[in-house]
Amino acid sequence: MSNPGKLYGVGTGPGDPELLTLKAARVLAEADVIAHFAKKGNRSNAEAIVVGRTRPDAIVLPLLYPVTTEIDSKHDDYRTSITGFYEESAEAVAGHLAAGRSVAVLSEGDPLFYGSYMHLHVRLAHRFPTEVVAGVTAMSGCWSMTGTPITQGDDVLMVLPGTLAEAELAKRLAEADAAVIMKVGRNLPKIRAALATSGKLDRAIYVERGTMANGKAMRLVAKADDAAPYFAIVLVPGWSGRA
Amino acid sequence: MSNPGKLYGVGTGPGDPELLTLKAARVLAEADVIAHFAKKGNRSNAEAIVVGRTRPDAIVLPLLYPVTTEIDSKHDDYRTSITGFYEESAEAVAGHLAAGRSVAVLSEGDPLFYGSYMHLHVRLAHRFPTEVVAGVTAMSGCWSMTGTPITQGDDVLMVLPGTLAEAELAKRLAEADAAVIMKVGRNLPKIRAALATSGKLDRAIYVERGTMANGKAMRLVAKADDAAPYFAIVLVPGWSGRA
Repeated sequence: MSNPGKLYGVGTGPGDPELLTLKAARVLAEADVIAHFAKKGNRSNAEAIVVGRTRPDAIVLPLLYPVTTEIDSKHDDYRTSITGFYEESAEAVAGHLAAGRSVAVLSEGDPLFYGSYMHLHVRLAHRFPTEVVAGVTAMSGCWSMTGTPITQGDDVLMVLPGTLAEAELAKRLAEADAAVIMKVGRNLPKIRAALATSGKLDRAIYVERGTMANGKAMRLVAKADDAAPYFAIVLVPGWSGRA
Repeated sequence: MSNPGKLYGVGTGPGDPELLTLKAARVLAEADVIAHFAKKGNRSNAEAIVVGRTRPDAIVLPLLYPVTTEIDSKHDDYRTSITGFYEESAEAVAGHLAAGRSVAVLSEGDPLFYGSYMHLHVRLAHRFPTEVVAGVTAMSGCWSMTGTPITQGDDVLMVLPGTLAEAELAKRLAEADAAVIMKVGRNLPKIRAALATSGKLDRAIYVERGTMANGKAMRLVAKADDAAPYFAIVLVPGWSGRA
């Protein structure tokens, strides 16, 4: 067997292709295999970011999520299906590594912060040489795009998945100086209610497709509950007016 | 008066010069003035990161913190001194902008996440064209360097300044799935005690100078309380063993 290839978890940043790091650009330009998670038929944001940055002869390895939207994510069938998918994906990547090919796994934002890459990392990092290339997170992209100072001094920041129950969201928001709510999508009405309960609705900012060409932002009170992308983010700045 | 120059808050990332973004590199290569916060006699990490990336004829504008280490940060004298310093710094930057020169303010990590840049931002962004270039945060650098998946799924992440009181740290740590403790330095014994109280000491990871050439990391239980840099970070991964 040849020397094994190296596994790279590569953060591709929040959306603006220029927010790729120099290190990510170098790794992508050298990798033998470019792997990315995607839904069947969808082009991922990460793929769009790296266009023109990979080797023309690089092998593209799409890791396609099983169709799971009809199954509740707490359900055993979902867990079995998604675990099997991660196992198969890890073995597909392992095959290339064992054959001596380096593999860069694209990861939107930062690879180890709510990213799918970590499911490969825990299965492969003890078997193959591995390096994680940190990326700019979606939340950094959102507060930078909107020029919103998020935390200063002794501020406590809470990062909260919008999938939490309303009462838990409200309790945690009440205790936070600053907050970022991820995974907004259809959780938006619940998030709005929790912010109102905690007295923080007025200063909440809604951002969708942050740093992308078609990105937009507004005060949450000005945003209707009609539709929000799953990856939209709500920011609650901890720091306003203090200077 | 000529057209005003543009103000850029530029995230320079966690320390590894390759973790600069492509956008930061472009802005630095074009800026007329490079401003950076520093302590007198100290070279900042941000300066080291951008060596060779700025224009040879760029004006360097150091913004030197007043000597304040002898004064408690809660004390009125400290607040008066530091507020005056931010006012003067903002006016120094404003002078260049008004004269038509673009100014890039270096900001370690991400500009609006516990960064000094935001003190300029709130004073200048309504007066001059302004753009914030998001950066890779120190915490992303630390969990990537150590290959530590930090959050997944419904995990709540808390970012806690180590300057908080021990009882408050312990309470918040007990409620967190994952945590990042910033501003460690001489707060390390207190942080260790709070982690023990909350039952999370065993999985805590200590990182200093994350992603830098002389960076190091170890389990916190293996780290002595003797000395820790102010910018050291403690990670409490929310996600271990789950796959």
